[in-house]
Amino acid sequence: MKKFVNRVDDVLTEALRGFGAAHRDLVAVKFDPTYVTRAKPTKVGKVALISGGGSGHEPLHAGFVGTGMLDAACPGAVFTSPTPDQMAAAAQAVNSGAGVLFVVKNYEGDVMNFEMATELLDFPHATVKTNDDVAVENSTYTTGRRGVAGTVIVEKIVGAAAEENRPLAALRELGDRVNGRTRSMGVALSSCTVPAAGKPTFELAGDEIEMGVGIHGEPGRRRVKHKPADDIAGEMMTAITGDLGAKAGSEVLLLVNGYGGTPAMELYLMFDAAKRVLDGKGLKITRSLVGNYCTSLEMAGCSLTVTALDAETTRLWDAPVHTAALRW
Amino acid sequence: MKKFVNRVDDVLTEALRGFGAAHRDLVAVKFDPTYVTRAKPTKVGKVALISGGGSGHEPLHAGFVGTGMLDAACPGAVFTSPTPDQMAAAAQAVNSGAGVLFVVKNYEGDVMNFEMATELLDFPHATVKTNDDVAVENSTYTTGRRGVAGTVIVEKIVGAAAEENRPLAALRELGDRVNGRTRSMGVALSSCTVPAAGKPTFELAGDEIEMGVGIHGEPGRRRVKHKPADDIAGEMMTAITGDLGAKAGSEVLLLVNGYGGTPAMELYLMFDAAKRVLDGKGLKITRSLVGNYCTSLEMAGCSLTVTALDAETTRLWDAPVHTAALRW
Repeated sequence: MKKFVNRVDDVLTEALRGFGAAHRDLVAVKFDPTYVTRAKPTKVGKVALISGGGSGHEPLHAGFVGTGMLDAACPGAVFTSPTPDQMAAAAQAVNSGAGVLFVVKNYEGDVMNFEMATELLDFPHATVKTNDDVAVENSTYTTGRRGVAGTVIVEKIVGAAAEENRPLAALRELGDRVNGRTRSMGVALSSCTVPAAGKPTFELAGDEIEMGVGIHGEPGRRRVKHKPADDIAGEMMTAITGDLGAKAGSEVLLLVNGYGGTPAMELYLMFDAAKRVLDGKGLKITRSLVGNYCTSLEMAGCSLTVTALDAETTRLWDAPVHTAALRW
Repeated sequence: MKKFVNRVDDVLTEALRGFGAAHRDLVAVKFDPTYVTRAKPTKVGKVALISGGGSGHEPLHAGFVGTGMLDAACPGAVFTSPTPDQMAAAAQAVNSGAGVLFVVKNYEGDVMNFEMATELLDFPHATVKTNDDVAVENSTYTTGRRGVAGTVIVEKIVGAAAEENRPLAALRELGDRVNGRTRSMGVALSSCTVPAAGKPTFELAGDEIEMGVGIHGEPGRRRVKHKPADDIAGEMMTAITGDLGAKAGSEVLLLVNGYGGTPAMELYLMFDAAKRVLDGKGLKITRSLVGNYCTSLEMAGCSLTVTALDAETTRLWDAPVHTAALRW
């Protein structure tokens, strides 16, 4: 295993310490229990937005802590759910009285631990579960669909709405609505190596790709021979748009998300390929995002996400955001 | 070779088409000859800032076209200098009468082609050559030191000054000054594959790393056994700070630049490691940047860059920027 590591047990602590130092104008990093908050306290009257999950998907979620997006993030060990005490401590720290909304990717460990955390809270709370991955119905770590890169879009749009001091129930409804209009699918060209494991999570032959891969390297739909980018994008976009069911003429956001080991050049080439599919279906790309947002360590591959937008969600997408990884 | 590609000959065209579509609010992409400009014309009175070089280093340079940074970028084929006609066409397109400043990374092909381009121009022009890489003195593709990730810092600071309508000579002087206060060094944990070559540029054994690697995978100082992150960062920072010669108490910008295949977690861990070295030398990190800014396709590895700041360069670093890859 060749990685920038000192002791495997210290990877997360050192990385979070570096993250906190590099972005000290934006965030504060706490240890024991571990969570990341904004540098400034939550405004009174504002619902606090919290997310979390296993590490290894950076910038998800700590990179999205800041004005217009999350109030706190709880990073677990690599590809491992954070613990209820982390989540409860983060919630206590950022609740300003208006309650907290948890955004949880649909994995059994995460869902269970966030539920346990809420039992420790004596103030209002609600949860939005994301499950945007159309690749598989049930999977290695889930009952139902997996929550993947579409979670970034939910966090951005709900985060903008939270800045407007909307009440908890309205934010949960908005989060469910955005998740319900979002579909994703991924593909892996290579595996990835969890530092503590020291060897690749799975093996792919030199000419194989994993269609529908999960963000922990868990199996997708099928393993196929490597094929041209247009064929890969075509298969993914057919699954996504077929499931989304947006009518011709609809406005959509297209996110091309790198898994950590794919050159920007290839992500933009995939954007071009995916756009041609959407153009052919009469879906209009009015907002775009291309880059590493929900990664799987150094996996080569990408996911495509399409969100059907309306006037309100477009406005909230465009609202100012100031985080380590998303800023405008 | 597993990459998101249709035909190898079309990689650059399709990627640039995707880039242009994803960022059509910011940039316009032209073909034959190929260059990228801002979506809006250069303001009258403003010197136009142009950079370029081989592709494969994205977001450098096209990702830095926009308000507060470049007016145009000329992407060559992968790891190949752009041609003089590209550069001259870009210069003609963005010159608003105040002339153009070229920012050129010190590689023989780039320097020669930019010089030939200037012979085609009938308006004022000047050039800043970047050579921030302390790893080697002369190298495979250079006489003198190589220009690497520090170029991003030169482009940001000079770009901000250009928005203030400073004259050409002052901008060149500023660019030379920032370059003169900037030092970088890189390390590769893996090779990378140029699409047209179809196989890795170089070979590294499973336990080897290349200290001082160039951004095309060209040799650095020495090939050594893989070692802890602190040792790698220590060797790089010793070379950088020794050459920079900034006094204790100086304010610096620290850039940890990923080469394309390194997880964000490891880049932040390297930030932490590099920061401890700077702390030990009494150098104060007042500005930070961590991410993939000057890549080598999907190479695993990173470079560290330190720029000694003063009040003026800090202010210009903080000035608004609105590009695909850098925005605040």
